[in-house]
Amino acid sequence: MAERFTVSYRILADSMPDAEQRAGAIALEQTVEIPRDLVPTGYIENLVLGQVTSVTASADQVYNAVLSYSMDAVGDSLNQLINVIYGNTSMQQGIKVVDFRPCARLTALFPGARFGIDGLRRLIGRERGGLVCPVLKPQGTNTGDLAKLCYATLRAGADIVKEDHGLANQPAAPFRDRVPALAQAAARANAKRADAGDTTRGLYFATMNGHGNQLHDDALFAKQAGADGVLIMPGLFGYDAINCLARDPEFGLPIMAHPSHLGAFASSADNGYSHGMLFGTLARLAGADISIFPNVSGRFGYSHAECREIAAACTDPSGHGIPILPSPGGGMTLDRMADMRSMYGDDCVYLLGGGLLRLGDRIGDGVREMIAALSA
Amino acid sequence: MAERFTVSYRILADSMPDAEQRAGAIALEQTVEIPRDLVPTGYIENLVLGQVTSVTASADQVYNAVLSYSMDAVGDSLNQLINVIYGNTSMQQGIKVVDFRPCARLTALFPGARFGIDGLRRLIGRERGGLVCPVLKPQGTNTGDLAKLCYATLRAGADIVKEDHGLANQPAAPFRDRVPALAQAAARANAKRADAGDTTRGLYFATMNGHGNQLHDDALFAKQAGADGVLIMPGLFGYDAINCLARDPEFGLPIMAHPSHLGAFASSADNGYSHGMLFGTLARLAGADISIFPNVSGRFGYSHAECREIAAACTDPSGHGIPILPSPGGGMTLDRMADMRSMYGDDCVYLLGGGLLRLGDRIGDGVREMIAALSA
Repeated sequence: MAERFTVSYRILADSMPDAEQRAGAIALEQTVEIPRDLVPTGYIENLVLGQVTSVTASADQVYNAVLSYSMDAVGDSLNQLINVIYGNTSMQQGIKVVDFRPCARLTALFPGARFGIDGLRRLIGRERGGLVCPVLKPQGTNTGDLAKLCYATLRAGADIVKEDHGLANQPAAPFRDRVPALAQAAARANAKRADAGDTTRGLYFATMNGHGNQLHDDALFAKQAGADGVLIMPGLFGYDAINCLARDPEFGLPIMAHPSHLGAFASSADNGYSHGMLFGTLARLAGADISIFPNVSGRFGYSHAECREIAAACTDPSGHGIPILPSPGGGMTLDRMADMRSMYGDDCVYLLGGGLLRLGDRIGDGVREMIAALSA
Repeated sequence: MAERFTVSYRILADSMPDAEQRAGAIALEQTVEIPRDLVPTGYIENLVLGQVTSVTASADQVYNAVLSYSMDAVGDSLNQLINVIYGNTSMQQGIKVVDFRPCARLTALFPGARFGIDGLRRLIGRERGGLVCPVLKPQGTNTGDLAKLCYATLRAGADIVKEDHGLANQPAAPFRDRVPALAQAAARANAKRADAGDTTRGLYFATMNGHGNQLHDDALFAKQAGADGVLIMPGLFGYDAINCLARDPEFGLPIMAHPSHLGAFASSADNGYSHGMLFGTLARLAGADISIFPNVSGRFGYSHAECREIAAACTDPSGHGIPILPSPGGGMTLDRMADMRSMYGDDCVYLLGGGLLRLGDRIGDGVREMIAALSA
């Protein structure tokens, strides 16, 4: 069984026999996609066809089914792995992916994050404490003003600055002008920090939001321009886009996953993925080092339990690959920092956007306050 | 307003003021992503910020909001266009995308399908009648057996054969062995058809399911090997992957979109996309020529109304770009062909998988019966 990985599905069903029938249908749908009596005997039936490992009742009309799949059903690409996990079954009602366990062959192909928590702390030079990450926005701001914001927040001690996920190749700040200018602003801020005896260094993450077939070129351009990492939206580019960069030795920088366009996968109790699976496990599987998700009490309706589940799935030492940094965002303000720290602890990238921008010229003070709140 | 496109959202709200507040929040979220009072005056407020065009009540606690967006918020990539349409808003409850109207600048950047209904009919040489498309599967079948299936179904008169979406680069039939072998089988079948006086030609579509950063190379490999088109899953590779190939003059073949992993976007009445928007409008926007979706009464629970909405969104002459072919699939059998024809008419690609495989050596008879049922 070392060559088989398992996926757990939460299934709505009227009875145990119904649940078992649905689990068997998933095994067919996700692999051979033909009726059971047509499955050829031998290799296909014995290995390629999904296998139902267990079906257990977990609540009234709710069952948990564990299925195992062979890596022979996957081949070598992450998209086909996710296709096996949930492709066609995503179109059926009442089936939700809640857990995933790799096998040795899968882990060899998809080893997970390159940097993770420890690697990012090394790059920043900060052994402990929550990490502070202002967001460079709004969309429509010209390159010069974005560079000033980048400089001011990093100079004040931010651990990371990231471009808003909506920055692409727009006229106000075209990608190939913007990224070098922001990288230079970051370098100037870091030089000042070093001059002042600061042993930490703030990282600048550029948003990858051009044509998908230019992702590799865009990422290398950002690297050569001096960016320290990139942000990608797997809900638009696919988790595979993260994986392609994570496995690319020529690139070799940390990757931040942004949740845009992933919402439908987490908005239903009965379909999609569990929050931990979507924003934790899949991000780790793809090779992301930081996973952004909508924080509780922000503009999105995620609960405390859902956010805790995401953070745990990111940081669990027994999860896929090395632990990565959860990054709650959305409607955060300075006065919530202490509460957030007690919820997420130190191994977390704390995003702050509008709340910081409100401070105008005092934005550096805001960053310093945020750092103080997270180090108190 | 020629530079602004519009998106219609179905919004759940307690009252008209609540609905208006939610619509205003979408305008912020999808563009500047900062609180309203922080939006810089001038260019950003006047152009980049989304604008609420209208909010109307459509049912009890259900409202329809039309928003307009500037192409300056988009730039030039399809992923950023979809990011503006529904990116972060996908993570909020009770907001669903139900319609989209392009502006001139958008249409110039994303002109739609290259072939569409008329172009595919020209390639096949068939002016009228429903198009018959057997699926090459199951996963795990070796290249030789897939080639036999490809030959037998095309020789019997199939208009298109497509590889199952789960075929990737697996050991039983590695991509670079499989595609040339199947293209050669298709060429032999078409040569026999021509010898027999058949004026139509069956097309072979190869599945693009490798690493995303190899999509261009894989597609050109398939073309050079003799494939007539490719199948892509936008739910895994992103709609932009279709768009990159549709805009690539070096590629220049028709594209079939497969719905795998898109289910969560259509499984809720209150979130995601309407069926027509998801499988019709987005597919046309990306440049797909054929859009596969789960047929009513198959293994998926889509209703007659939902399937009709999809077919209408694909074929509507006033939709984005040229009309494309809807392609209902999932659990189809020969005895349902007549019913399906009365539902979808002639401009449709009728998929048949398990129902054909059941015939074994008589599969050619099945294809001929299917063609007869669709031409009766």
